[in-house]
Amino acid sequence: MRTIAIDAMGGENAPEAIIQAVLRAKKELSKTKFILFGDQKRIKELLGSDSSHIEVVNTSEIILDEDEPVKAIRSKKDSSLVVAAQYVKQGKADALFSLGNTGAILACGIFIIGRIKGVARPGFMPTLPVKNSDDGFNMIDVGANAKSKPEYLLAWAKMASYYAEKVRGIKNPRVGLLNNGSESDKGDDVHQKAYQLLLESKVNFIGNIEGNELLDGKADVIATDGFTGNAVLKNIEGTSSVLIHLLKESLLNNGPFVKLGALMIKKALKGLVSKFDVDKYGGAVLLGVNAPVVKTHGRSGQRAVYFTIKQIDKILQEKIIDNFKAEFAVENKE
Amino acid sequence: MRTIAIDAMGGENAPEAIIQAVLRAKKELSKTKFILFGDQKRIKELLGSDSSHIEVVNTSEIILDEDEPVKAIRSKKDSSLVVAAQYVKQGKADALFSLGNTGAILACGIFIIGRIKGVARPGFMPTLPVKNSDDGFNMIDVGANAKSKPEYLLAWAKMASYYAEKVRGIKNPRVGLLNNGSESDKGDDVHQKAYQLLLESKVNFIGNIEGNELLDGKADVIATDGFTGNAVLKNIEGTSSVLIHLLKESLLNNGPFVKLGALMIKKALKGLVSKFDVDKYGGAVLLGVNAPVVKTHGRSGQRAVYFTIKQIDKILQEKIIDNFKAEFAVENKE
Repeated sequence: MRTIAIDAMGGENAPEAIIQAVLRAKKELSKTKFILFGDQKRIKELLGSDSSHIEVVNTSEIILDEDEPVKAIRSKKDSSLVVAAQYVKQGKADALFSLGNTGAILACGIFIIGRIKGVARPGFMPTLPVKNSDDGFNMIDVGANAKSKPEYLLAWAKMASYYAEKVRGIKNPRVGLLNNGSESDKGDDVHQKAYQLLLESKVNFIGNIEGNELLDGKADVIATDGFTGNAVLKNIEGTSSVLIHLLKESLLNNGPFVKLGALMIKKALKGLVSKFDVDKYGGAVLLGVNAPVVKTHGRSGQRAVYFTIKQIDKILQEKIIDNFKAEFAVENKE
Repeated sequence: MRTIAIDAMGGENAPEAIIQAVLRAKKELSKTKFILFGDQKRIKELLGSDSSHIEVVNTSEIILDEDEPVKAIRSKKDSSLVVAAQYVKQGKADALFSLGNTGAILACGIFIIGRIKGVARPGFMPTLPVKNSDDGFNMIDVGANAKSKPEYLLAWAKMASYYAEKVRGIKNPRVGLLNNGSESDKGDDVHQKAYQLLLESKVNFIGNIEGNELLDGKADVIATDGFTGNAVLKNIEGTSSVLIHLLKESLLNNGPFVKLGALMIKKALKGLVSKFDVDKYGGAVLLGVNAPVVKTHGRSGQRAVYFTIKQIDKILQEKIIDNFKAEFAVENKE
C-alpha cells in the first residue's frame, strides 16, 4: 500500500479543500492510504463517516507563511508539516504533501527527509503549460537554490527527464538549458559549463532555450539555475495574471455593448483560461530527497489538491525515487 | 543643434520604416539633425525632396543578425552601424540609433564610443509597461552582461533612476532590486551585497521585487543582474505573445457566434493591446557609454522608430550623458 502524508493545515483553503480532495481522490486510488496531519477534531468532522484508508494524526501547531522556515521547523515540532515529514522519515509514510510555507517544506525535505546520496542539491520542479499541447514542461530549479553550480543543473536535468518520461509519459524528453542566447558559448561560467555537461550526458539535450521560448513547447524539461528559474516562474505567473486582469477589466468597463460581446465569447475564453489553469499540472516536486516532497500553491482549491494527490500517487507507483537512488549511487561509485 | 546618427539598414523593415519615422519626427524636432547611414541611393529615393536637416552617408556593408558581433564590427568597417558609431565617436553626431544586431550595437557602444570613466560595465535598459499606469518602468541590465557584480547593479540603478526622472518625468523614482524573495537577506552573494549598496546609496531604494511583481508598477526602476534580466525580459515578451496568440485563436476558432462576440469587443481589446504595445515606450538605452546608444526591436515599424527618435532627442535635450560623466567622475575622485 502506498501512503501519502498530507499536511491538512497548510494553505488558504485548509483544511476544507484538502479533505474534499482526499475524499475525491480516494475513490480512484484503491491502493493508496492517506495520513492527514492537523486539527483532528476538525478534520474528522469534515471527513464524516468516510474514513476508510484515511488516518488522522492530531498536531497542535501550524507553520505560517510568515514564519522563518528553518527556525520554524526547529521550534514548531508539533506542527502538521513537521510531524508529517517525520512520518516520512520514519518510513510510516512514503511521500509528503503540503500547501504551506515553501521554505519550510524545502527545509523539511532537506533536513528531515534528507538528500539522496550523490545529489548535492535538491531542486524544486513545477510542471508548466505550453502553447500548442496539453503536455506542458518541467522547469527545475525554480528557487530551492539561490546559487547554483553546473553539476547541480546536470543532476536536476537527469531527474526531471526521468520524471517527465515515467510520470508524464513523454518518450525521450527534450531537455533545454535556460540561457541568454542560443549559441553554445552563451551565458556565464555556470551556464557554459552546464551546457557542456548536458551535452556529454545521456539526457536528450537540445541546447539553449531563451526566456521567450519557454511556453512554446520546444523542450519538455528546462534546466535552470534556481535564481533565474525563480524569477522566470514568478514572472510567468505575474505576466499572465496582469494580462488576464486587464482583459477582464477592458471587457467589463467598456459599456453594455462590449459586455454583451464578452458574454458571447465567454465559453471560448474559458478554454483559454483552462490552458493556463495550472490546477491540472499538479504541484511542484522537490527532486533529490529521499521521498516525494510535493507542494502546491497556498491559494490552491480542491481541484488542484486532487490533481496533486494523483500526481504523487503516480510518482510512488513508478518508484521514481528508488530509481534516483540507484542512479546516483552508481555514479558515485564510478 | 542635436545630431542623431541612424543606422538606416538595420531591422526587418529597413530602410523604409526608418525613413518614414525620420520624416515624421523631423516635423516636430526643429532643433535636431539626422544623419542616415546606408545605401545612399535607396535612402535618397525614399526621402524624396524633403531633405532639410537630413544628411545621408553612403555605406557599402550591413551587419546581419546572424553575424558574430565583435568580429562583425571589426571586419565590416564600412557597415552602416560601424560608420554611424564612428561619427558619434568623432563628435560628428551626438547619439547612435539602430534596429540591428543587438550584440553588435553593444560592441559599438563599448569598443567604439567607449565607456564613461567610472562605469565598470554599461547596461541595457528598456522601458516596459505596468498594470495601472501609462508610466511603465525601466529595467537594467537586460543582457549586456552575462555576469554581474553588486557594484554594477548600483551604477545601473543610479543611471536608470536619473533617466526615469529626467526623460520620463518621474519624481524621485522608486528603485527595486529583482530578487528571489522580499526579505533583505534573499538571493545569492551578488544580490545580498547589491541590496546593501542600494540601501546606502542616494537612490530611492524600496527593497526587493519578485518576478511576479514586475508589471504591477511597484517600482519605476528595477535593477537586475544581466542574466536574470535577460531571461525575464524575454519571458515577458514570450508569455504575453503566447497569451495573445491563444486569445485570438480561441476567438476565431469557436464558431460564428463567438466571432460576432469578438467583433463586439474588438475596440475594448485594442485598448488592452496598446497597453502592451511597446512601440510608445521607445527603445532600450545602453547606459554607461559616452553617448546615447539606443536600440529597438528588429521587427519595429515606423511608429516604434518614431517614438524612439523622440526618446533619443529627449535624452540629448536633458544632457543625461553629461550628468553621468560628472557623477561618476566625482565618485572616482572620492
